[in-house]
Amino acid sequence: MTANWRLDERLEQDSFWLGTRNGIEFRWMKDARYAWLVLIPQVADAEEWHDLAQPMRDDLFTLSMQAAQRLKKATGADKMNVANLGNKVRQLHVHVVARHIGDAAWPGPVWGVGQAQVHDQPEATLQEMRDLFDL
Amino acid sequence: MTANWRLDERLEQDSFWLGTRNGIEFRWMKDARYAWLVLIPQVADAEEWHDLAQPMRDDLFTLSMQAAQRLKKATGADKMNVANLGNKVRQLHVHVVARHIGDAAWPGPVWGVGQAQVHDQPEATLQEMRDLFDL
Repeated sequence: MTANWRLDERLEQDSFWLGTRNGIEFRWMKDARYAWLVLIPQVADAEEWHDLAQPMRDDLFTLSMQAAQRLKKATGADKMNVANLGNKVRQLHVHVVARHIGDAAWPGPVWGVGQAQVHDQPEATLQEMRDLFDL
Repeated sequence: MTANWRLDERLEQDSFWLGTRNGIEFRWMKDARYAWLVLIPQVADAEEWHDLAQPMRDDLFTLSMQAAQRLKKATGADKMNVANLGNKVRQLHVHVVARHIGDAAWPGPVWGVGQAQVHDQPEATLQEMRDLFDL
């Protein structure tokens, strides 16, 4: 990670740590309604994708896309949502969300809809996701 | 464009044509509340980013990121939202939305919020955007 990088407090609170690849932190959202991954490059002060220098810029794209592909297959999702929004949390992060027809927010976006559902036993899921994403 | 590609009817209805670069159609959403670009690779049956082969896969990423950078500068946006959702319209398309603090959906996502506002005189904006994106 770059000097002075520190994970945003809200991201830390809302998600579980999975692991790190190529200086990109993989985290799992604390919301059992969805299979919802977040990728955060450990680069201080990056807010937009274009704030990143190479090779981080391409790595974030490649890993986000690869993660979407694997998560779609693993969950049988109908559609993947891959997005950098960051209106509330400015630290650059990419959402990779597996969407299923009829899920809690379908067909709208997941952000800001209802209350997060606590995971019953997160450890099994987290280990499964670490295996899936080679973490 | 690939054989059998045809622009999705809803995308066609909801946006203005701007132009095409590298087989990617640039369109401008018919919603004057936001500066909102959509990029659509002219590839039949692509729904997910990982459905694309090279070089289209990287071109879509590079052009989306470049467009976000230019649109942020041109509009003075506080944050760019770059997203492939596609829950309603499955044809692969990437949203590039300039967000401003206090805009009609701030700080939530723009999709499905309120009613689109008709452009008063779209042609001037469309020409400005063609210049901005080298179309």
